[in-house]
Amino acid sequence: MADGYVLWFTGLSGAGKSTIADLVVARLRARGAPVELLDGDEIRTHLSKGLGFSREDRDINVRRIGWVAGLLSRHGVGVVTAAISPYVAVRDEVRAMTTNFVEIFVDAPVDECRRRDVKGLYARADRGEIPNFTGVSDPYEPPVAPELHLRTTEEDPESSAARVLAYLRERALVA
Amino acid sequence: MADGYVLWFTGLSGAGKSTIADLVVARLRARGAPVELLDGDEIRTHLSKGLGFSREDRDINVRRIGWVAGLLSRHGVGVVTAAISPYVAVRDEVRAMTTNFVEIFVDAPVDECRRRDVKGLYARADRGEIPNFTGVSDPYEPPVAPELHLRTTEEDPESSAARVLAYLRERALVA
Repeated sequence: MADGYVLWFTGLSGAGKSTIADLVVARLRARGAPVELLDGDEIRTHLSKGLGFSREDRDINVRRIGWVAGLLSRHGVGVVTAAISPYVAVRDEVRAMTTNFVEIFVDAPVDECRRRDVKGLYARADRGEIPNFTGVSDPYEPPVAPELHLRTTEEDPESSAARVLAYLRERALVA
Repeated sequence: MADGYVLWFTGLSGAGKSTIADLVVARLRARGAPVELLDGDEIRTHLSKGLGFSREDRDINVRRIGWVAGLLSRHGVGVVTAAISPYVAVRDEVRAMTTNFVEIFVDAPVDECRRRDVKGLYARADRGEIPNFTGVSDPYEPPVAPELHLRTTEEDPESSAARVLAYLRERALVA
């Protein structure tokens, strides 16, 4: 059985995590590689309903994703997650509980994310309608030494996805 | 990749679920088969901290176990769970969301479980110290048509475990 791995996309809302993650998953599936996307919304539905966005609740949510990612990666599955996961400490916990953890910093300045505002969330956060909004009223701690650093203001999602695939091939985690 | 499956042990506290599940897991591991035990206590720690034992909370807990079992079984892993899971409806939900669901009714009369009372829980429940205790103050709905029915007053755990392994071989889910 091939080794599993975890592609852990982290970054602000609107930075491009899900867009790139979806492209990577589609390409891995097209190659027939075993892969599972743990989407932030799906996780909130299936594992974390009732949790809010305080630091404590965010940390619990991230640990749950990490625990499931650990189970799957241990059994040879490639896991892709796209959650803001703003705190260094709990990301490092997840690194320790998974197999071949790949931290991918999806980096865009908050002003650029606010300009994109695909879901209209920044506008609501700026009006004070969403408390604990990362980058507005809640901190985001960037990765210290991420395996990959994707600057989404400097390259398009296809190029970012290609870099992730190239990294997996280099590490011999996909054929 | 071989098909995954889910061995879903259900029954009263003290009926013998964990004892038999542990034996089955040990034998599967000894054969080198990919297997993961989702232990009730571990689940309550990692996925369901804060949930209680109301029907609603039990159902959420069982659905979370089922969701994780679905992810693993979809990727060829044999999953073994041992949770009381007292309600038919949510067990059927889990059946629908997993691959090769095998419902195993670990059956012992409540008086026998109370007599064994390995963890001292029945004594506490009888004193009213544990509300919503299955078989005492909360219902247990037995499986209608379980794939396996193990009567732990009539056979020892080794024999029960052997029957589970024989069933997996018959279904060609293990070699």
